Amino acid sequence: MQFISEQRLDDDALEREFTLGEIPGILWTPATVSEPAPLILLGHPGGLRKMYPRLLARARHSAAAGFATATIELPGSGDRPRSAVAEQARADLRRAIQAGEPVAEEIVERLILPLVDKAVPEWQSALDALLSLPEIRGPVGYSGGVIAIGTRLAAVEPRISAAVLFAGSYVPRTIFDEARQVTIPLHVLLQWDDEGNDRQMALDLFDAFGSSQKTLHANMGGHTGVPQFAGEEANRFFTRHLT
Amino acid sequence: MQFISEQRLDDDALEREFTLGEIPGILWTPATVSEPAPLILLGHPGGLRKMYPRLLARARHSAAAGFATATIELPGSGDRPRSAVAEQARADLRRAIQAGEPVAEEIVERLILPLVDKAVPEWQSALDALLSLPEIRGPVGYSGGVIAIGTRLAAVEPRISAAVLFAGSYVPRTIFDEARQVTIPLHVLLQWDDEGNDRQMALDLFDAFGSSQKTLHANMGGHTGVPQFAGEEANRFFTRHLT
Repeated sequence: MQFISEQRLDDDALEREFTLGEIPGILWTPATVSEPAPLILLGHPGGLRKMYPRLLARARHSAAAGFATATIELPGSGDRPRSAVAEQARADLRRAIQAGEPVAEEIVERLILPLVDKAVPEWQSALDALLSLPEIRGPVGYSGGVIAIGTRLAAVEPRISAAVLFAGSYVPRTIFDEARQVTIPLHVLLQWDDEGNDRQMALDLFDAFGSSQKTLHANMGGHTGVPQFAGEEANRFFTRHLT
Repeated sequence: MQFISEQRLDDDALEREFTLGEIPGILWTPATVSEPAPLILLGHPGGLRKMYPRLLARARHSAAAGFATATIELPGSGDRPRSAVAEQARADLRRAIQAGEPVAEEIVERLILPLVDKAVPEWQSALDALLSLPEIRGPVGYSGGVIAIGTRLAAVEPRISAAVLFAGSYVPRTIFDEARQVTIPLHVLLQWDDEGNDRQMALDLFDAFGSSQKTLHANMGGHTGVPQFAGEEANRFFTRHLT
């Protein structure tokens, strides 16, 4: 892990860009750290540059609550090499949606499974590197989409103690089996009228999670319209489970 | 409205029992009231005596947040005269559930619609009386079940500005039409694995509400197992909308 830039934000949180091999990432740490901070991994749909304003807003809120946050670019997004398989799957997905057809399971599998297979070990490597920094300690939370990535991480990575999962992307059936293995506390955010989201699938996935402590918060406002109070509730979830 | 008892609780909130004609009720007001308090009507499934511990807990939390709360007995519950129609419908409902049959819409209608028809004007009369007290002012919220009563009240009573609705009781189809007329901010609580609740019906009702600000919070823990943090989130909803 190599830090390549560092800046103080106006609220005094520290933002550092890094690379982890070829993977770019960003780490935010709270302004005042008397002791190593718990960590939240910020998931997103890919494209750090495009996602930066929203990631920064989440990082600031988390920093104010005493959490370090970090994110890395997804495989095939941003400046990372494209995947021909994923690009073809995305084109097929777009074609199906435009034709008003149901999206075939095999398209979802081609789009999502290779992404999950590649991304999850990368997030785990990032976790190795981040937890070796003196200013960060566990416990660790995962917050965001892609929900299939968050689900796999929650199922396989024992260092993740709690997760806020954003419904709103396609989930292959096989991920439902992994969801049944998840036992950590979960807080699932669903935008009820998310135009690009299969609501029933999100409800089915919430039902599938094995966790005895799981909460679903559904709100209005479209895909990017998560209300501010919903973000604050997610922060309180992490405060309950990571501090 | 006649007050028939008065006691200071150990946290200094004031509890007063009252009667409104033949209807018993309870009013709780915060310990320190520098100005008239906003009011939350506490809905419940009937049986004030049995419900008292849970109502008291909700009243204490609300009082701590500066709200007055009040509740009245439902028609046919507690010490109020039984309804032969409702008793028969309840028996038919029990028989259907024990036989593992789907509950017929006409049973739900016989059970719920006369209750809603009778209860809603009673809550409105209680509101008249409560808002005439110098220590209470609007805005007014409704919090609790029976969700069909809360839905009708939210649809027809303009003095109610926001509602926390507890899913967990049967809803006749006609109430769905009334739900579409509701435009106030809503916060719907659903116990996901509520043994006595039709989850899909609750989700369909949430979808039907016309409110542009509506939130669904689903939690684990069975019918009476609403987690404490979920109660706190509901309180914050009222603080956002009634203060």
